[in-house]
Amino acid sequence: MSMPSAQEQIPELKRGTQEVLLEADLRAKLARGKPLHVKAGFDPTAPDLHLGHTVLINKMRQFQALGHDVTFLIGDFTGLIGDPTGKNATRPRLTREEIEANARTYEQQIYKILDPARTKIDFNSRWLIPLGSVGLVELASQYTVARMLERDDFAKRYKGGQPIAIHEFLYPLAQGYDSVAMKADVELGGTDQKFNLLVGRTLQEGYGQEPQVAITMPLLEGLDGVNKMSKSLGNYIAITEPANEMFGKLMSISDTLMWRYFELLSFRSLGEVEALKRGVAEGRNPRDVKFELGVEIVDRFHGAGAGGRARDEFIARFQQGARPTDIPKHTVAVPPEGERIGAVLRETQLAASISAANRLIEQGAVRVDDQKVADRELRLLPGRTVVLQAGKRGFAEVTLVEKP
Amino acid sequence: MSMPSAQEQIPELKRGTQEVLLEADLRAKLARGKPLHVKAGFDPTAPDLHLGHTVLINKMRQFQALGHDVTFLIGDFTGLIGDPTGKNATRPRLTREEIEANARTYEQQIYKILDPARTKIDFNSRWLIPLGSVGLVELASQYTVARMLERDDFAKRYKGGQPIAIHEFLYPLAQGYDSVAMKADVELGGTDQKFNLLVGRTLQEGYGQEPQVAITMPLLEGLDGVNKMSKSLGNYIAITEPANEMFGKLMSISDTLMWRYFELLSFRSLGEVEALKRGVAEGRNPRDVKFELGVEIVDRFHGAGAGGRARDEFIARFQQGARPTDIPKHTVAVPPEGERIGAVLRETQLAASISAANRLIEQGAVRVDDQKVADRELRLLPGRTVVLQAGKRGFAEVTLVEKP
Repeated sequence: MSMPSAQEQIPELKRGTQEVLLEADLRAKLARGKPLHVKAGFDPTAPDLHLGHTVLINKMRQFQALGHDVTFLIGDFTGLIGDPTGKNATRPRLTREEIEANARTYEQQIYKILDPARTKIDFNSRWLIPLGSVGLVELASQYTVARMLERDDFAKRYKGGQPIAIHEFLYPLAQGYDSVAMKADVELGGTDQKFNLLVGRTLQEGYGQEPQVAITMPLLEGLDGVNKMSKSLGNYIAITEPANEMFGKLMSISDTLMWRYFELLSFRSLGEVEALKRGVAEGRNPRDVKFELGVEIVDRFHGAGAGGRARDEFIARFQQGARPTDIPKHTVAVPPEGERIGAVLRETQLAASISAANRLIEQGAVRVDDQKVADRELRLLPGRTVVLQAGKRGFAEVTLVEKP
Repeated sequence: MSMPSAQEQIPELKRGTQEVLLEADLRAKLARGKPLHVKAGFDPTAPDLHLGHTVLINKMRQFQALGHDVTFLIGDFTGLIGDPTGKNATRPRLTREEIEANARTYEQQIYKILDPARTKIDFNSRWLIPLGSVGLVELASQYTVARMLERDDFAKRYKGGQPIAIHEFLYPLAQGYDSVAMKADVELGGTDQKFNLLVGRTLQEGYGQEPQVAITMPLLEGLDGVNKMSKSLGNYIAITEPANEMFGKLMSISDTLMWRYFELLSFRSLGEVEALKRGVAEGRNPRDVKFELGVEIVDRFHGAGAGGRARDEFIARFQQGARPTDIPKHTVAVPPEGERIGAVLRETQLAASISAANRLIEQGAVRVDDQKVADRELRLLPGRTVVLQAGKRGFAEVTLVEKP
């Protein structure tokens, strides 16, 4: 594959980045026309990726698409260390088996984005364990306490009298040594990784190597468009979420956030994204552009065609048969073993009789929580609240309680 | 061997110490009546011990004499590390062979003081290398940056903007881990080691062990009685110095310093030293007590009897036949193969004739540089300056040049 010129690569590689340190170094490396070694490190703990995590992986994919070599580096060295500092929450050591199982989980997820044939998965224990205690002491001699205390979080904790355990100083050095061992040309990381990425530059110089380019990626905003996407804030889309949920959540974002997601999540070229923007500026409905984003993302994680299907179902459900906002509420007492759906439909006046209810079921016109009911023997159990639908317009929110 | 009670041991063990942390812990350990594991660490670089260094070794001997186990620990782990921080003075790694050669040099010297049968020589690389990079990171997790920066020299350097390399934080931890690996009951060190000895206490507690007692020994004053004994100040007595020099230097110290040397260098019991002090208070010449110190020290390093001989020679040379301060100077031209001693004595007018010179030689009354001349055929070679003595009062400083 012949590689595009540095001039052509730079704008795509800079797309969406927070910082490129130093761009001149990146230009010089690209100008040689040889594939660069691109590295990004990931936690060895069980991964459950959301779209926020994929921002970095997408950047890896971009390098890959331009002909560079990428390594997905699992930082398993740290996982081998039991952490006794937090006395209450001692972090258990991961076994070799657990680390390998986690690596396989990563593979299942990242190969939705990266090309398996052109991705190297590696483990930093491969060189950090042979480094040994002697090598680690030598490594530690390459960096000063004062420079380490310049790192934002260390500086704050030190000034605030909060303890910093000494091994925390060793992690950035170990990460930097990864770059030395891998002879990395580029390291990618989140904005919070900037310091560590620069340690890598320093160490490489100390070991007589050309320093890597440090590229930081911003944190992706969550669905609310304000806070970073995170599991604990609930504003995330997991990459294993069902297609319809993923599509629906993407439709819920603002038009402004949509362009941000195009920048950081879409694989369309900058030129294509510009064309979409022009279209909206000239009067195209932004909703239709958002559909295109949703289709692309759902296709990525659920296979080609899944995005189109999710879009169609979305349209069918929310645009053609949208639930009314004023659904009447009922409480229905049912026996412990549950009550047949037909009896509940009659009770809530969604059907005039059980036989009328059964006819609706046969027509496929009855839904419980949006799921079509196929079996008239379906029993609703006590202890839940469900939304029943009969035909286009019949809705009832039913709280099922146990008959005394 | 039945061990004396804690009550009996404590005063001798405290003798001459700077600090015992904590004395209550020492008392509790001794009270069990079992031999304690006593540890002292030494540099792996080529040792050339002077009396200052023996203060610590004497304390080890004291423990040994009371029935405890002592380990002379050679800190070879650090010697295995090349130190690239001082760019101008890169410390070369020591090879295994060099470390073992240095250990043998230590043995030759310390067994003048310690009982070889009851001394263990060990190397901390034995456990610090198997600790590995993972173990070292775990070890580093046991201590905080803030506590490490409390160490005097670190605090000064940090405040003064002088660099502290991160591996310098690892050395006290490695030394502390030695105590864990050895299950040390007591660690001995110089006053500058206090911090490191206390790190050992902390780590032992972290590893669920009873903390060691940290005993620091003061730095011995040099011959001037003011500065610490050191090679660079020239106020030292090497333990390999010839007996006469060693004795002579000990005689040069003040009476005050003599008691300090009794405390830190003599193996006499506190009771015996008290008796000597009483003797002087009651009119005994302190010089005679100093003789006893000199004889003891010279005997230690040159074998029983050597001290007495050195004392006798000292008395002969400096008290009965002290050299005058105004020795006349001569220059004598001699052939390349040298000139007979008799001819030179005549030439410098120390003898009236060669036969008179030979008679003096037969009487044992002729000395060259204080060495008695036994052979009238002795030839003095060109290119030196020597002091000749003939009888009690005849002195000449003769510069021998080659006859043209």
